Amino acid sequence: MKLFRFGTFEQEKPGVILPNGRKIDVSAFGQDYNEAFFASNGINRLAEWLTANADTCPEVSDSIRLGSCVARPSKIVCIGLNYAKHAAESGAQVPPEPVIFFKSTTALCGPFDNVIIPRNSVKTDWEVELAFVIGKKASYVDEAEAMDYVAGYILHNDYSEREFQLERSGQWVKGKSNDTFAPMGPFMATKDEIADPHKLRLWLKVNGEMLQDSNTDDMVFKIPKLVSYLSQFMTLLPGDVISTGTPFGVGLGFKPPRYLKSGDVVELGIDHLGTQRQVAVAYQ
Amino acid sequence: MKLFRFGTFEQEKPGVILPNGRKIDVSAFGQDYNEAFFASNGINRLAEWLTANADTCPEVSDSIRLGSCVARPSKIVCIGLNYAKHAAESGAQVPPEPVIFFKSTTALCGPFDNVIIPRNSVKTDWEVELAFVIGKKASYVDEAEAMDYVAGYILHNDYSEREFQLERSGQWVKGKSNDTFAPMGPFMATKDEIADPHKLRLWLKVNGEMLQDSNTDDMVFKIPKLVSYLSQFMTLLPGDVISTGTPFGVGLGFKPPRYLKSGDVVELGIDHLGTQRQVAVAYQ
Repeated sequence: MKLFRFGTFEQEKPGVILPNGRKIDVSAFGQDYNEAFFASNGINRLAEWLTANADTCPEVSDSIRLGSCVARPSKIVCIGLNYAKHAAESGAQVPPEPVIFFKSTTALCGPFDNVIIPRNSVKTDWEVELAFVIGKKASYVDEAEAMDYVAGYILHNDYSEREFQLERSGQWVKGKSNDTFAPMGPFMATKDEIADPHKLRLWLKVNGEMLQDSNTDDMVFKIPKLVSYLSQFMTLLPGDVISTGTPFGVGLGFKPPRYLKSGDVVELGIDHLGTQRQVAVAYQ
Repeated sequence: MKLFRFGTFEQEKPGVILPNGRKIDVSAFGQDYNEAFFASNGINRLAEWLTANADTCPEVSDSIRLGSCVARPSKIVCIGLNYAKHAAESGAQVPPEPVIFFKSTTALCGPFDNVIIPRNSVKTDWEVELAFVIGKKASYVDEAEAMDYVAGYILHNDYSEREFQLERSGQWVKGKSNDTFAPMGPFMATKDEIADPHKLRLWLKVNGEMLQDSNTDDMVFKIPKLVSYLSQFMTLLPGDVISTGTPFGVGLGFKPPRYLKSGDVVELGIDHLGTQRQVAVAYQ
């Protein structure tokens, strides 16, 4: 099943993309894609509900804005330096264990919204990433059981302001949290839709030029390890989003570095998880 | 006004401590102390409602558990190295601008709950801190207007696992986010209750021995600066908690360092914001 959300920013309604590609409004189901939904077996309940109700759900026009495909979670956890070539281009080594940082959940936005270059930013950068959504409360989870805690997968662009992140007195969260820095979607694919999350091509273009083009099989720490590892340090809640890191090809890695300027067009995609497109605009 | 929350973990109800010290259950007001409450002028509405209804509210017995005095916010933002002597004991310099990190909101707990020493932890440490609560949405706020965005103040113990924070491949969030690592309370004092938040004694004892004893007048970056600064990097939402950093006297700073073991008793307080007491217990 493919879950999406549509409508005005922060007032999005839930929708489902049917196997035939038809997009329907499932507001009548009565729940948004939030912590309560995932905590209460929402995916299976919704699938069941659709067998009786899909035919009478209103269609969602392609002209309507898409929002983040999941509602605001308790947290967005990101993994740093999780592809070997990206670690090298960032001037870092692959760490012996996963690097964790948070992104403010206020950074969430839709997959086709503009990305806002923050005030005083000169180093706004892109990062195509595979994100996954937690399906049930996770604390001290063993790696062998970890996949039971995954509800689905999302395409995510982990926008990063490199000066804020790396040159402004410490802790990366500072460069990861501006508004519009976390476009999520176009949809969340439920776990059953993706045969192997570690065999997906992911790519990103700026102004039509391919700059990131890799595969999730290059990930250093895989999803079961990440779930288990994170759950040693914090409780993961249903609906939480974990973003697994970006491959080679970010702006920081070019010599000289390349950063976004107003008018630039960023396009990205992951196999089976759709595509995104953002136009960069300066904050005003 | 002093706001508190009481009852079973994650099912807390809202209460108010009246000027005469009587603790009352204000569930009948119909709102918890969450984002919606702060965003909708909840403090003033509640004060108004109390003038007519305080007398008929049930009393809350002193034997009932206190929870975090605010509901789970969208984020807990912490400031690092914000007292000069604490920076020195941590082997760091006072940074030229504030260091920011996040704490998982799942770390929230009540002021008298046990602190759970995480599995495999050998360096669980304490940090008494003055926290404040955001009253309205803040983005690119000027320092001169910043205090308009503050709703109130809270006593917070920013528990920190130093090995997780500093020796496990990067980003402090890893040592700040375990369950029970953010006791908040016993109450939130509304802004009008604190004449000067930068003139408050704050202290912490372990097993009766005074280990932190300082004053918020030693803070490097003051609250108006912090609100303004943070709002350049992320949107702060009503109900968000900002913790302003800890003074000298954490376990990490002793030679040799001193960390918590099962059975240790941690007590702490800030002028006008009450006291907390936690007993350390090992995770099992």
